[in-house]
Amino acid sequence: MAEDTVADIKRKSMTIIVTKGSLDWGYPPFILATTAAALDYEVTLFFTFYGLALLKKKLDPKFTVLGNAAMEMPMFGTHIAMPNFMAMIPGVDAIAGSMMKKMIKDKGVASLEELREAAVLSDVRMIACQMTLDLFEYKKEDLIDDIELGGAATYFDIASRSHINMFM
Amino acid sequence: MAEDTVADIKRKSMTIIVTKGSLDWGYPPFILATTAAALDYEVTLFFTFYGLALLKKKLDPKFTVLGNAAMEMPMFGTHIAMPNFMAMIPGVDAIAGSMMKKMIKDKGVASLEELREAAVLSDVRMIACQMTLDLFEYKKEDLIDDIELGGAATYFDIASRSHINMFM
Amino acid sequence: MAEDTVADIKRKSMTIIVTKGSLDWGYPPFILATTAAALDYEVTLFFTFYGLALLKKKLDPKFTVLGNAAMEMPMFGTHIAMPNFMAMIPGVDAIAGSMMKKMIKDKGVASLEELREAAVLSDVRMIACQMTLDLFEYKKEDLIDDIELGGAATYFDIASRSHINMFM
Repeated sequence: MAEDTVADIKRKSMTIIVTKGSLDWGYPPFILATTAAALDYEVTLFFTFYGLALLKKKLDPKFTVLGNAAMEMPMFGTHIAMPNFMAMIPGVDAIAGSMMKKMIKDKGVASLEELREAAVLSDVRMIACQMTLDLFEYKKEDLIDDIELGGAATYFDIASRSHINMFM
Repeated sequence: MAEDTVADIKRKSMTIIVTKGSLDWGYPPFILATTAAALDYEVTLFFTFYGLALLKKKLDPKFTVLGNAAMEMPMFGTHIAMPNFMAMIPGVDAIAGSMMKKMIKDKGVASLEELREAAVLSDVRMIACQMTLDLFEYKKEDLIDDIELGGAATYFDIASRSHINMFM
Repeated sequence: MAEDTVADIKRKSMTIIVTKGSLDWGYPPFILATTAAALDYEVTLFFTFYGLALLKKKLDPKFTVLGNAAMEMPMFGTHIAMPNFMAMIPGVDAIAGSMMKKMIKDKGVASLEELREAAVLSDVRMIACQMTLDLFEYKKEDLIDDIELGGAATYFDIASRSHINMFM
Protein backbone atom coordinates (compact mmCIF):
# COMPACT_ATOMS: atom_id res chain seq x y z
CA MET A 1 0.00 0.00 0.00
CA ALA A 2 1.11 3.54 -0.72
CA GLU A 3 0.68 4.58 2.91
CA ASP A 4 2.77 1.65 4.11
CA THR A 5 5.58 2.58 1.77
CA VAL A 6 5.47 6.13 3.06
CA ALA A 7 5.47 4.90 6.68
CA ASP A 8 8.38 2.56 5.97
CA ILE A 9 10.65 5.29 4.66
CA LYS A 10 9.89 7.52 7.66
CA ARG A 11 12.74 7.30 10.17
CA LYS A 12 11.98 4.89 13.01
CA SER A 13 11.89 6.39 16.48
CA MET A 14 11.99 5.32 20.12
CA THR A 15 11.55 7.01 23.49
CA ILE A 16 12.50 5.66 26.90
CA ILE A 17 11.46 7.09 30.27
CA VAL A 18 14.43 6.27 32.50
CA THR A 19 13.43 6.05 36.18
CA LYS A 20 16.15 3.87 37.74
CA GLY A 21 19.75 4.81 38.32
CA SER A 22 21.55 1.86 39.89
CA LEU A 23 24.59 0.19 38.31
CA ASP A 24 22.62 -2.73 36.89
CA TRP A 25 19.42 -0.89 35.84
CA GLY A 26 21.50 1.89 34.28
CA TYR A 27 22.55 -0.48 31.51
CA PRO A 28 19.27 -1.31 29.72
CA PRO A 29 18.38 2.27 28.66
CA PHE A 30 21.88 3.05 27.34
CA ILE A 31 22.26 -0.36 25.62
CA LEU A 32 18.87 -0.07 23.92
CA ALA A 33 19.41 3.60 23.03
CA THR A 34 22.84 3.10 21.44
CA THR A 35 21.72 -0.04 19.61
CA ALA A 36 18.65 1.73 18.25
CA ALA A 37 20.79 4.72 17.22
CA ALA A 38 23.15 2.34 15.40
CA LEU A 39 20.09 1.03 13.56
CA ASP A 40 19.35 4.67 12.58
CA TYR A 41 16.48 5.21 15.01
CA GLU A 42 15.75 8.66 16.34
CA VAL A 43 16.12 8.06 20.09
CA THR A 44 15.00 10.19 23.04
CA LEU A 45 15.77 9.35 26.67
CA PHE A 46 13.73 11.16 29.30
CA PHE A 47 15.46 10.96 32.70
CA THR A 48 13.22 11.32 35.71
CA PHE A 49 12.94 10.06 39.29
CA TYR A 50 15.95 7.98 40.38
CA GLY A 51 17.09 7.82 36.73
CA LEU A 52 18.32 11.40 36.92
CA ALA A 53 21.39 10.10 38.78
CA LEU A 54 22.61 8.62 35.47
CA LEU A 55 23.19 12.14 34.13
CA LYS A 56 25.49 13.27 36.90
CA LYS A 57 28.95 14.35 35.75
CA LYS A 58 30.51 12.16 38.40
CA LEU A 59 28.79 8.86 37.71
CA ASP A 60 28.86 6.69 40.81
CA PRO A 61 25.92 4.33 40.52
CA LYS A 62 25.49 2.02 43.47
CA PHE A 63 24.93 -1.64 43.02
CA THR A 64 22.72 -3.56 45.35
CA VAL A 65 22.02 -7.27 45.43
CA LEU A 66 18.88 -6.60 47.47
CA GLY A 67 15.59 -7.32 45.80
CA ASN A 68 17.27 -8.90 42.81
CA ALA A 69 16.17 -12.39 43.74
CA ALA A 70 16.94 -13.66 40.26
CA MET A 71 20.52 -12.46 40.24
CA GLU A 72 23.12 -15.12 40.00
CA MET A 73 26.80 -14.48 39.55
CA PRO A 74 29.08 -16.90 37.79
CA MET A 75 31.60 -17.83 40.47
CA PHE A 76 33.85 -20.82 40.95
CA GLY A 77 32.56 -22.25 37.67
CA THR A 78 28.93 -22.25 38.76
CA HIS A 79 26.15 -19.75 39.44
CA ILE A 80 25.72 -18.53 42.96
CA ALA A 81 22.58 -16.70 43.98
CA MET A 82 23.29 -14.09 46.61
CA PRO A 83 21.08 -14.64 49.63
CA ASN A 84 19.50 -11.42 50.80
CA PHE A 85 21.07 -11.52 54.23
CA MET A 86 24.55 -11.43 52.66
CA ALA A 87 23.75 -7.95 51.45
CA MET A 88 23.31 -6.88 55.04
CA ILE A 89 27.02 -7.28 55.76
CA PRO A 90 28.44 -3.80 55.15
CA GLY A 91 30.82 -3.97 52.19
CA VAL A 92 29.17 -6.86 50.37
CA ASP A 93 27.29 -4.54 48.04
CA ALA A 94 30.49 -2.75 47.16
CA ILE A 95 32.18 -6.08 46.43
CA ALA A 96 29.29 -7.30 44.27
CA GLY A 97 29.39 -3.96 42.45
CA SER A 98 33.06 -4.19 41.57
CA MET A 99 32.67 -7.90 40.69
CA MET A 100 29.94 -6.97 38.23
CA LYS A 101 32.10 -4.18 36.78
CA LYS A 102 34.98 -6.65 36.38
CA MET A 103 32.71 -9.32 34.90
CA ILE A 104 31.36 -6.81 32.40
CA LYS A 105 34.89 -5.63 31.57
CA ASP A 106 36.23 -9.18 31.10
CA LYS A 107 33.44 -9.90 28.62
CA GLY A 108 34.21 -6.87 26.54
CA VAL A 109 31.01 -5.05 27.46
CA ALA A 110 31.30 -1.28 27.76
CA SER A 111 31.16 0.53 31.10
CA LEU A 112 28.19 2.72 31.95
CA GLU A 113 30.32 5.82 31.33
CA GLU A 114 31.37 4.49 27.91
CA LEU A 115 27.78 3.69 26.99
CA ARG A 116 26.60 7.14 28.04
CA GLU A 117 29.37 8.73 26.00
CA ALA A 118 28.39 6.52 23.05
CA ALA A 119 24.80 7.72 23.43
CA VAL A 120 25.96 11.36 23.28
CA LEU A 121 28.09 10.66 20.19
CA SER A 122 25.17 8.83 18.53
CA ASP A 123 22.97 11.92 18.86
CA VAL A 124 20.64 10.27 21.34
CA ARG A 125 18.52 13.13 22.66
CA MET A 126 18.72 13.23 26.46
CA ILE A 127 16.20 15.23 28.46
CA ALA A 128 16.39 15.72 32.23
CA CYS A 129 13.04 16.12 33.98
CA GLN A 130 12.88 19.64 35.40
CA MET A 131 10.45 18.66 38.18
CA THR A 132 12.69 15.86 39.45
CA LEU A 133 15.68 18.19 39.27
CA ASP A 134 13.89 20.61 41.58
CA LEU A 135 12.50 17.90 43.84
CA PHE A 136 15.82 16.17 44.44
CA GLU A 137 17.71 19.49 44.54
CA TYR A 138 20.08 18.66 41.73
CA LYS A 139 21.70 21.58 39.96
CA LYS A 140 22.01 21.80 36.17
CA GLU A 141 25.79 22.08 36.57
CA ASP A 142 25.90 18.71 38.41
CA LEU A 143 24.77 17.08 35.17
CA ILE A 144 26.66 16.46 31.93
CA ASP A 145 26.48 19.19 29.30
CA ASP A 146 24.93 17.23 26.46
CA ILE A 147 21.38 17.30 27.79
CA GLU A 148 18.33 19.55 27.76
CA LEU A 149 15.85 20.25 30.53
CA GLY A 150 12.20 19.51 29.86
CA GLY A 151 8.87 18.45 31.25
CA ALA A 152 6.24 15.83 30.63
CA ALA A 153 4.67 17.89 27.82
CA THR A 154 7.93 17.70 25.85
CA TYR A 155 8.01 13.97 26.42
CA PHE A 156 4.43 13.40 25.23
CA ASP A 157 5.00 15.47 22.13
CA ILE A 158 7.84 13.15 21.09
CA ALA A 159 6.32 9.88 22.33
CA SER A 160 3.01 10.31 20.52
CA ARG A 161 4.93 10.34 17.23
CA SER A 162 7.32 7.45 18.07
CA HIS A 163 7.19 3.79 17.03
CA ILE A 164 8.44 2.36 20.33
CA ASN A 165 7.86 3.89 23.78
CA MET A 166 9.18 2.36 26.95
CA PHE A 167 9.24 2.96 30.67
CA MET A 168 12.13 1.51 32.61
CA MET B 1 -0.87 12.95 3.44
CA ALA B 2 -4.60 12.59 3.87
CA GLU B 3 -4.23 9.61 6.20
CA ASP B 4 -1.73 11.46 8.39
CA THR B 5 -4.09 14.39 8.72
CA VAL B 6 -6.85 12.03 9.76
CA ALA B 7 -4.57 10.35 12.29
CA ASP B 8 -3.46 13.70 13.68
CA ILE B 9 -6.97 14.89 14.45
CA LYS B 10 -7.81 11.60 16.22
CA ARG B 11 -7.56 12.06 19.98
CA LYS B 12 -4.22 10.84 21.35
CA SER B 13 -4.41 7.98 23.84
CA MET B 14 -2.25 6.24 26.43
CA THR B 15 -2.53 3.13 28.59
CA ILE B 16 -0.45 2.21 31.62
CA ILE B 17 -0.33 -1.18 33.33
CA VAL B 18 0.32 -0.28 36.97
CA THR B 19 2.01 -3.13 38.87
CA LYS B 20 3.75 -1.39 41.78
CA GLY B 21 2.09 0.20 44.78
CA SER B 22 4.77 1.66 47.03
CA LEU B 23 4.92 5.36 47.97
CA ASP B 24 7.62 6.20 45.44
CA TRP B 25 6.50 3.97 42.55
CA GLY B 26 2.90 5.10 43.02
CA TYR B 27 3.83 8.55 41.69
CA PRO B 28 4.89 7.88 38.07
CA PRO B 29 1.55 6.42 36.86
CA PHE B 30 -0.55 9.20 38.41
CA ILE B 31 1.84 11.97 37.32
CA LEU B 32 1.95 10.70 33.73
CA ALA B 33 -1.81 10.02 33.65
CA THR B 34 -2.84 13.46 34.91
CA THR B 35 -0.30 15.22 32.68
CA ALA B 36 -1.51 13.30 29.63
CA ALA B 37 -5.12 14.05 30.54
CA ALA B 38 -4.24 17.76 30.82
CA LEU B 39 -2.82 17.47 27.29
CA ASP B 40 -6.22 16.03 26.25
CA TYR B 41 -5.10 12.41 25.97
CA GLU B 42 -7.56 9.62 26.55
CA VAL B 43 -5.88 7.78 29.45
CA THR B 44 -6.52 4.31 30.84
CA LEU B 45 -4.77 2.90 33.91
CA PHE B 46 -4.97 -0.85 34.43
CA PHE B 47 -4.13 -1.75 38.04
CA THR B 48 -2.83 -5.24 38.63
CA PHE B 49 -0.43 -7.11 40.90
CA TYR B 50 0.97 -4.94 43.71
CA GLY B 51 -0.41 -1.86 41.92
CA LEU B 52 -3.93 -2.70 43.07
CA ALA B 53 -2.98 -1.29 46.49
CA LEU B 54 -3.10 2.20 44.94
CA LEU B 55 -6.88 1.89 44.54
CA LYS B 56 -7.61 1.20 48.19
CA LYS B 57 -9.93 3.72 49.85
CA LYS B 58 -7.48 4.03 52.72
CA LEU B 59 -4.26 4.75 50.88
CA ASP B 60 -1.31 3.80 53.05
CA PRO B 61 1.55 3.06 50.68
CA LYS B 62 4.74 1.95 52.36
CA PHE B 63 8.04 3.44 51.47
CA THR B 64 11.17 1.37 51.45
CA VAL B 65 14.72 2.46 50.85
CA LEU B 66 15.70 -1.15 50.15
CA GLY B 67 16.70 -1.99 46.62
CA ASN B 68 16.67 1.66 45.59
CA ALA B 69 20.42 1.87 45.32
CA ALA B 70 20.19 5.09 43.36
CA MET B 71 18.12 6.93 45.91
CA GLU B 72 19.69 9.93 47.44
CA MET B 73 17.97 12.36 49.74
CA PRO B 74 18.94 15.99 49.97
CA MET B 75 20.01 16.37 53.60
CA PHE B 76 22.25 18.84 55.39
CA GLY B 77 22.78 20.65 52.09
CA THR B 78 24.13 17.60 50.29
CA HIS B 79 22.87 14.27 48.93
CA ILE B 80 23.09 11.29 51.20
CA ALA B 81 22.67 7.82 49.80
CA MET B 82 20.98 5.52 52.26
CA PRO B 83 23.09 2.43 52.81
CA ASN B 84 21.02 -0.74 52.70
CA PHE B 85 21.82 -1.78 56.23
CA MET B 86 20.23 1.41 57.59
CA ALA B 87 16.92 0.14 56.32
CA MET B 88 17.27 -2.84 58.61
CA ILE B 89 16.89 -0.70 61.72
CA PRO B 90 13.15 -0.88 62.46
CA GLY B 91 11.68 2.58 62.02
CA VAL B 92 14.13 3.86 59.44
CA ASP B 93 11.76 3.06 56.57
CA ALA B 94 8.98 4.94 58.30
CA ILE B 95 11.28 7.93 58.80
CA ALA B 96 12.41 7.90 55.17
CA GLY B 97 8.76 7.65 54.13
CA SER B 98 7.69 10.71 56.07
CA MET B 99 10.82 12.59 54.98
CA MET B 100 9.89 11.93 51.37
CA LYS B 101 6.31 13.04 52.02
CA LYS B 102 7.59 16.24 53.65
CA MET B 103 10.12 16.82 50.86
CA ILE B 104 7.38 16.43 48.28
CA LYS B 105 5.08 18.75 50.24
CA ASP B 106 7.75 21.44 50.68
CA LYS B 107 8.34 21.47 46.93
CA GLY B 108 4.69 21.99 46.14
CA VAL B 109 4.24 18.55 44.62
CA ALA B 110 0.85 16.93 45.18
CA SER B 111 0.39 13.98 47.53
CA LEU B 112 -0.50 10.56 46.12
CA GLU B 113 -4.09 11.02 47.30
CA GLU B 114 -4.32 14.41 45.57
CA LEU B 115 -2.88 12.99 42.35
CA ARG B 116 -5.33 10.07 42.41
CA GLU B 117 -8.21 12.47 42.98
CA ALA B 118 -6.93 14.62 40.10
CA ALA B 119 -6.88 11.52 37.90
CA VAL B 120 -10.53 10.81 38.76
CA LEU B 121 -11.52 14.42 38.04
CA SER B 122 -9.62 14.33 34.73
CA ASP B 123 -11.68 11.35 33.54
CA VAL B 124 -8.71 9.01 33.60
CA ARG B 125 -10.27 5.57 33.16
CA MET B 126 -9.16 3.29 35.99
CA ILE B 127 -9.59 -0.47 35.74
CA ALA B 128 -8.83 -2.89 38.57
CA CYS B 129 -7.69 -6.34 37.47
CA GLN B 130 -10.35 -8.84 38.53
CA MET B 131 -7.88 -11.75 38.74
CA THR B 132 -5.55 -9.89 41.10
CA LEU B 133 -8.54 -8.81 43.18
CA ASP B 134 -9.47 -12.47 43.68
CA LEU B 135 -5.87 -13.62 44.18
CA PHE B 136 -5.04 -11.07 46.87
CA GLU B 137 -8.53 -11.33 48.43
CA TYR B 138 -9.36 -7.68 48.06
CA LYS B 139 -13.05 -6.76 48.07
CA LYS B 140 -14.58 -4.29 45.62
CA GLU B 141 -15.75 -2.18 48.57
CA ASP B 142 -12.13 -1.81 49.79
CA LEU B 143 -11.41 0.16 46.62
CA ILE B 144 -12.45 3.68 45.62
CA ASP B 145 -15.73 4.02 43.74
CA ASP B 146 -14.49 5.63 40.54
CA ILE B 147 -13.13 2.45 39.00
CA GLU B 148 -14.32 -0.50 36.92
CA LEU B 149 -13.33 -4.15 37.18
CA GLY B 150 -11.89 -5.79 34.10
CA GLY B 151 -9.55 -8.37 32.70
CA ALA B 152 -6.66 -8.58 30.29
CA ALA B 153 -9.01 -8.75 27.29
CA THR B 154 -10.39 -5.30 28.19
CA TYR B 155 -6.85 -4.00 28.49
CA PHE B 156 -5.75 -5.35 25.09
CA ASP B 157 -8.80 -3.94 23.38
CA ILE B 158 -7.84 -0.44 24.53
CA ALA B 159 -4.05 -0.80 24.20
CA SER B 160 -4.13 -2.03 20.62
CA ARG B 161 -5.77 1.28 19.63
CA SER B 162 -3.55 3.55 21.78
CA HIS B 163 -0.57 5.67 20.79
CA ILE B 164 1.47 5.07 23.94
CA ASN B 165 1.39 1.88 26.05
CA MET B 166 3.44 1.42 29.16
CA PHE B 167 4.13 -1.11 31.87
CA MET B 168 5.28 0.21 35.21
CA MET C 1 -11.37 4.67 5.88
CA ALA C 2 -9.81 2.15 3.53
CA GLU C 3 -6.47 2.27 5.34
CA ASP C 4 -8.13 1.69 8.70
CA THR C 5 -9.91 -1.34 7.37
CA VAL C 6 -6.63 -2.67 6.07
CA ALA C 7 -4.96 -1.99 9.43
CA ASP C 8 -7.80 -3.67 11.29
CA ILE C 9 -7.52 -6.94 9.42
CA LYS C 10 -3.75 -7.03 10.00
CA ARG C 11 -2.92 -9.38 12.87
CA LYS C 12 -2.31 -7.49 16.13
CA SER C 13 1.13 -7.91 17.64
CA MET C 14 2.97 -7.38 20.93
CA THR C 15 6.57 -7.58 22.12
CA ILE C 16 7.82 -7.70 25.70
CA ILE C 17 11.41 -7.23 26.84
CA VAL C 18 11.64 -9.46 29.92
CA THR C 19 14.37 -8.31 32.34
CA LYS C 20 13.28 -9.74 35.70
CA GLY C 21 13.31 -13.39 36.72
CA SER C 22 11.99 -13.65 40.26
CA LEU C 23 8.94 -15.73 41.20
CA ASP C 24 6.57 -12.77 41.34
CA TRP C 25 7.93 -10.74 38.40
CA GLY C 26 8.07 -13.87 36.25
CA TYR C 27 4.27 -13.91 36.12
CA PRO C 28 3.38 -10.68 34.27
CA PRO C 29 5.22 -11.47 31.01
CA PHE C 30 3.81 -15.00 30.75
CA ILE C 31 0.27 -13.97 31.78
CA LEU C 32 0.19 -11.10 29.26
CA ALA C 33 1.83 -13.21 26.53
CA THR C 34 -0.57 -16.16 26.84
CA THR C 35 -3.59 -13.87 27.12
CA ALA C 36 -2.55 -11.93 24.03
CA ALA C 37 -1.91 -15.19 22.15
CA ALA C 38 -5.40 -16.39 23.14
CA LEU C 39 -6.70 -13.14 21.62
CA ASP C 40 -4.80 -14.08 18.42
CA TYR C 41 -1.95 -11.61 18.86
CA GLU C 42 1.44 -12.38 17.41
CA VAL C 43 3.59 -12.29 20.58
CA THR C 44 7.36 -12.07 20.96
CA LEU C 45 9.17 -12.25 24.30
CA PHE C 46 12.77 -11.07 24.37
CA PHE C 47 14.55 -12.39 27.49
CA THR C 48 17.54 -10.41 28.65
CA PHE C 49 19.31 -9.44 31.88
CA TYR C 50 17.90 -11.24 34.95
CA GLY C 51 14.91 -12.34 32.84
CA LEU C 52 17.03 -14.99 31.15
CA ALA C 53 16.63 -17.11 34.30
CA LEU C 54 12.99 -17.71 33.28
CA LEU C 55 14.19 -19.81 30.32
CA LYS C 56 16.23 -22.27 32.36
CA LYS C 57 15.15 -25.90 32.01
CA LYS C 58 15.14 -26.23 35.78
CA LEU C 59 12.99 -23.28 36.78
CA ASP C 60 13.76 -22.27 40.35
CA PRO C 61 12.83 -18.62 40.65
CA LYS C 62 13.52 -17.09 44.02
CA PHE C 63 10.97 -15.01 45.79
CA THR C 64 11.96 -12.09 47.90
CA VAL C 65 9.82 -9.84 50.04
CA LEU C 66 12.57 -7.23 50.07
CA GLY C 67 11.87 -4.02 48.23
CA ASN C 68 8.24 -4.96 47.63
CA ALA C 69 6.92 -2.42 50.07
CA ALA C 70 3.43 -2.73 48.68
CA MET C 71 3.19 -6.48 49.11
CA GLU C 72 0.53 -7.67 51.43
CA MET C 73 -0.42 -11.28 51.93
CA PRO C 74 -3.89 -12.34 52.95
CA MET C 75 -3.34 -14.05 56.28
CA PHE C 76 -5.59 -14.75 59.23
CA GLY C 77 -8.47 -13.15 57.33
CA THR C 78 -6.69 -9.84 56.88
CA HIS C 79 -3.78 -8.39 54.89
CA ILE C 80 -0.41 -8.37 56.52
CA ALA C 81 2.40 -6.30 55.08
CA MET C 82 5.77 -7.95 55.56
CA PRO C 83 8.15 -5.58 57.30
CA ASN C 84 11.54 -5.50 55.64
CA PHE C 85 13.43 -6.70 58.65
CA MET C 86 11.45 -9.96 58.64
CA ALA C 87 13.09 -10.79 55.35
CA MET C 88 16.43 -10.68 57.08
CA ILE C 89 15.66 -13.79 59.09
CA PRO C 90 17.11 -16.61 56.95
CA GLY C 91 14.27 -18.80 55.75
CA VAL C 92 11.55 -16.19 55.71
CA ASP C 93 11.96 -15.59 51.99
CA ALA C 94 11.60 -19.30 51.33
CA ILE C 95 8.43 -19.40 53.44
CA ALA C 96 6.94 -16.38 51.67
CA GLY C 97 7.80 -18.02 48.35
CA SER C 98 6.00 -21.25 49.12
CA MET C 99 3.07 -19.33 50.65
CA MET C 100 2.72 -17.40 47.40
CA LYS C 101 2.93 -20.63 45.39
CA LYS C 102 0.22 -22.19 47.58
CA MET C 103 -1.93 -19.05 47.42
CA ILE C 104 -1.68 -19.07 43.64
CA LYS C 105 -2.47 -22.80 43.52
CA ASP C 106 -5.50 -22.49 45.84
CA LYS C 107 -6.93 -19.78 43.59
CA GLY C 108 -6.64 -21.90 40.46
CA VAL C 109 -3.93 -19.74 38.92
CA ALA C 110 -1.33 -21.61 36.87
CA SER C 111 2.24 -22.12 38.08
CA LEU C 112 5.10 -20.35 36.31
CA GLU C 113 6.09 -23.64 34.64
CA GLU C 114 2.52 -24.16 33.40
CA LEU C 115 2.33 -20.62 32.06
CA ARG C 116 5.67 -21.00 30.26
CA GLU C 117 4.49 -24.27 28.73
CA ALA C 118 1.25 -22.56 27.69
CA ALA C 119 3.29 -19.83 26.02
CA VAL C 120 5.25 -22.45 24.05
CA LEU C 121 2.03 -24.21 23.00
CA SER C 122 0.47 -20.86 21.98
CA ASP C 123 3.35 -20.19 19.56
CA VAL C 124 4.65 -17.27 21.58
CA ARG C 125 8.04 -16.54 20.02
CA MET C 126 10.73 -16.58 22.72
CA ILE C 127 14.14 -15.09 22.06
CA ALA C 128 17.07 -15.31 24.50
CA CYS C 129 19.50 -12.39 24.37
CA GLN C 130 22.83 -13.72 23.13
CA MET C 131 24.84 -10.98 24.89
CA THR C 132 23.29 -11.73 28.28
CA LEU C 133 23.86 -15.44 27.71
CA ASP C 134 27.58 -14.77 27.25
CA LEU C 135 27.77 -12.23 30.08
CA PHE C 136 26.14 -14.47 32.68
CA GLU C 137 27.86 -17.61 31.33
CA TYR C 138 24.67 -19.49 30.63
CA LYS C 139 24.88 -22.30 28.09
CA LYS C 140 22.25 -22.82 25.38
CA GLU C 141 21.67 -26.36 26.75
CA ASP C 142 20.73 -24.91 30.18
CA LEU C 143 17.70 -23.32 28.52
CA ILE C 144 14.49 -24.90 27.24
CA ASP C 145 14.47 -26.04 23.61
CA ASP C 146 11.61 -23.91 22.30
CA ILE C 147 13.59 -20.69 22.02
CA GLU C 148 15.88 -18.90 19.60
CA LEU C 149 18.99 -16.85 20.30
CA GLY C 150 19.04 -13.27 19.05
CA GLY C 151 20.27 -9.75 19.60
CA ALA C 152 18.83 -6.28 19.93
CA ALA C 153 18.64 -5.88 16.14
CA THR C 154 16.23 -8.82 15.95
CA TYR C 155 14.17 -7.26 18.70
CA PHE C 156 13.96 -3.85 17.01
CA ASP C 157 12.97 -5.37 13.72
CA ILE C 158 9.93 -6.97 15.37
CA ALA C 159 9.08 -4.13 17.79
CA SER C 160 9.02 -1.41 15.14
CA ARG C 161 6.17 -3.31 13.43
CA SER C 162 4.22 -4.18 16.60
CA HIS C 163 1.14 -2.52 18.09
CA ILE C 164 2.17 -2.91 21.74
CA ASN C 165 5.77 -2.88 23.04
CA MET C 166 6.65 -3.29 26.68
CA PHE C 167 9.63 -3.44 28.96
CA MET C 168 9.24 -5.35 32.19
